[in-house]
Amino acid sequence: MKRTIYFKNKPVIIGASSIAGPKESEGSIGKFIETTLNDDMYGEETFEKAESKMLFTAIKKATDNAHKKETEIDTIISGDLLNQIIASTFAARNFSSGYLGIYNACATFTEGLTIGATLVDGCYMNNVVCASSSHFSSAERQYRYPLELGCVRPPQSQWTVTGAGACIISTEGSGPKITASTVGRVIDYGVIDANNMGAAMAGAAADTLYTHFVETGLEPDAYDLIISGDLGTLGSRILKDLVWEKGFDIEKQHVDCGELIYNICESEYQGGSGAGCSSVVFCSYIMERLRENKLKKILIMSTGALLSSVSTQQGDSIPGIAHAVSVES
Amino acid sequence: MKRTIYFKNKPVIIGASSIAGPKESEGSIGKFIETTLNDDMYGEETFEKAESKMLFTAIKKATDNAHKKETEIDTIISGDLLNQIIASTFAARNFSSGYLGIYNACATFTEGLTIGATLVDGCYMNNVVCASSSHFSSAERQYRYPLELGCVRPPQSQWTVTGAGACIISTEGSGPKITASTVGRVIDYGVIDANNMGAAMAGAAADTLYTHFVETGLEPDAYDLIISGDLGTLGSRILKDLVWEKGFDIEKQHVDCGELIYNICESEYQGGSGAGCSSVVFCSYIMERLRENKLKKILIMSTGALLSSVSTQQGDSIPGIAHAVSVES
Repeated sequence: MKRTIYFKNKPVIIGASSIAGPKESEGSIGKFIETTLNDDMYGEETFEKAESKMLFTAIKKATDNAHKKETEIDTIISGDLLNQIIASTFAARNFSSGYLGIYNACATFTEGLTIGATLVDGCYMNNVVCASSSHFSSAERQYRYPLELGCVRPPQSQWTVTGAGACIISTEGSGPKITASTVGRVIDYGVIDANNMGAAMAGAAADTLYTHFVETGLEPDAYDLIISGDLGTLGSRILKDLVWEKGFDIEKQHVDCGELIYNICESEYQGGSGAGCSSVVFCSYIMERLRENKLKKILIMSTGALLSSVSTQQGDSIPGIAHAVSVES
Repeated sequence: MKRTIYFKNKPVIIGASSIAGPKESEGSIGKFIETTLNDDMYGEETFEKAESKMLFTAIKKATDNAHKKETEIDTIISGDLLNQIIASTFAARNFSSGYLGIYNACATFTEGLTIGATLVDGCYMNNVVCASSSHFSSAERQYRYPLELGCVRPPQSQWTVTGAGACIISTEGSGPKITASTVGRVIDYGVIDANNMGAAMAGAAADTLYTHFVETGLEPDAYDLIISGDLGTLGSRILKDLVWEKGFDIEKQHVDCGELIYNICESEYQGGSGAGCSSVVFCSYIMERLRENKLKKILIMSTGALLSSVSTQQGDSIPGIAHAVSVES
């Protein structure tokens, strides 16, 4: 079994775009986000439609930023947290490209990068979109409680990012290059608290990261940054402990998109989460730093908690997954 | 834009397995299904857990049939109809392989074949599993009404297949070969009746099939069979009409997995549907006929209706998608 794949032709990320709600736009990396919204309804009647429209905008602007026409995009690879990933489906309906819907919860973005880079690297396609989104309000009412109920949030909870990120992977052009990907597997540490996603995902993140180091022969200092998706403060600490126990110290390189995206204060507790968390941070701040060559080589590892409200109601624990993708400027 | 990709190294389907409930096991292709169940609860406490266990069994037996160890499987690519595809996730939790979760409703199986064949053809991986499942009872209560309500089914409705299919795609070995794939796009004809999936999907199927013929330069008679996923009787008629209008007559070659799987009688009306419909039929009857060389070249095109209960409640129409994969004995 091998879980790390290498891209010999080094597919290029020729364009990207991000969009986010008011809270995210005021956060630590807000100034790097291309489209910032004053109203998270985005002129739509429902949260779900607003999320889908955000995804549409991100895909459209990423295509424009890559100086490609819509008709040059072979396939859109996208996923989100909504049941039957309707944000992605209804966004893709507005384009004439092919569509591959994917779902690995908040690890969806790097799952998409892996599939997209494979399609492009092997010259099966020329230009593909990889995208993902989430919306605080559509996620809360689907996974937890109606917002109107005004439930108190426990201290281990995270705040679902309202936002979407999209990038264009291409056979040629200029931009950061995707060099390798380690595919995650489903790891279950038996966490049953649906508010404690960081702990549920940390084991999967540690497994993927450890596998990546072993299979590539790289050490943590091969990367300027090792970026987890949305482990939050608690989950990040668990990840660092778990990989340290296996002989790798990532203290210096590790950052978490969930920690980066907000000016962490009491109300978000552990930081951001959601399928849009890592895609917004990657398609704004990280892409900018890679383009400027301030970051030379990074590992982006989105992390997903693979629960549904039904699995929780039926007493199942929460398995996690994480896919790691290395990108060089 | 190109939507058809060609697999030069012709990845091999070295093993497959199917499992289905009592109703499917008594149907026209029942004798080809490897594991037939007397009870669709499969020893589990809930329909969802039964569906996940079916998927686990199909993956396990496909691996055995391919004479591979579980540790030789690089990645499991799987999806299903449940919210957050928990049948797939919880099945994948039992394996140590990587996992890529996908969702294109009932078109998930050929989406998986496309991604799997790409990973193997480009030598990124050696052995991958492609699988999908559905369960009548878990689908009914998620998408429509509680079973206990005893709702009358309208004549255009289909019957969700209780079953799962899995196959192993490999770089080497003997078995049918995957030669090309045409990726579908999201097509919306404005159908709003969630009981009329066949009509909602027929437009997407016609678009994919027409694109496949145009991009490959093939005519319908290049195939022994052109197999749609779950259009049912009405949807199949619409598909044949639509491609006939564009200059292709598929009357002689076309069959539909939804029509094949049941001895169609009044209660199933239009035939079978569900993400397990095309995977069960392909991984049983079709694989057997390909292995025996009674079928030499087929096109399998799973078809998906991309709705959710939320999109229906919010007044959205039902977009469709279809991915076509050509397989040669």
